[in-house]
Amino acid sequence: MIPTHIEHIGIAVKNLHESIRYYEDVLGLKCYKIEEVKDQKVRTAIFKIGESKIELLETTDPDGPIGRFIKDKGEGVHHIAFAVNNIQEALKEVRAKGVFLVDDKPRKGAEELNIAFLHPRSTHGVLMEFCSDK
Amino acid sequence: MIPTHIEHIGIAVKNLHESIRYYEDVLGLKCYKIEEVKDQKVRTAIFKIGESKIELLETTDPDGPIGRFIKDKGEGVHHIAFAVNNIQEALKEVRAKGVFLVDDKPRKGAEELNIAFLHPRSTHGVLMEFCSDK
Repeated sequence: MIPTHIEHIGIAVKNLHESIRYYEDVLGLKCYKIEEVKDQKVRTAIFKIGESKIELLETTDPDGPIGRFIKDKGEGVHHIAFAVNNIQEALKEVRAKGVFLVDDKPRKGAEELNIAFLHPRSTHGVLMEFCSDK
Repeated sequence: MIPTHIEHIGIAVKNLHESIRYYEDVLGLKCYKIEEVKDQKVRTAIFKIGESKIELLETTDPDGPIGRFIKDKGEGVHHIAFAVNNIQEALKEVRAKGVFLVDDKPRKGAEELNIAFLHPRSTHGVLMEFCSDK
């Protein structure tokens, strides 16, 4: 398993609409979708940039993962998602190498992708996600 | 100005060689260069992934920017770098839109790129960098 590219960068923000304004008006990117991911208690605004995406994440619940992240650390990068061809195999492979997983099995993320998080204590402080569309 | 792609993600790490081992042995990426950037008081290990790069950053000085970041926040994503075609114009444009800049003029970063940082108080909590090779 070698990730093919950075699928997206997940960024925790306090206010989705204020942040969208910055990414659109200042950086010139275009938000092509706003989606609620109930499972993760977030609303996400998605921008394409090259082969990658930026996902702004606003919590829908102060006690959800993004709500807690904002409370502890403020706004900022929440996770990096790597595109892999076969997520089941990728998870099996990194688990065999001693990586702790947040998700033992893939679940559905934004845009119907199959996603799973690796635990930051195994990844030198960065919350990492694998993504695949199969 | 619209950034063309994510040029790199800069990740602060405590120990470059331990982190390189994770990115190579677990994620399967290949470190193709280790470079010291004296100006920023870091040694950086660079990996290609798709059209983007990952730059692991280890401080060469406890009081340098990465040393202070690690002290305050621990390991994690330090900045996102966007590739732009013309960095001078990009800086002029965002400054005119009210963005505070860390660097008024481009300076040399890793791999001889022209780089400049935007201030995170203008960018909703994420330290952002523009990069261009011209």
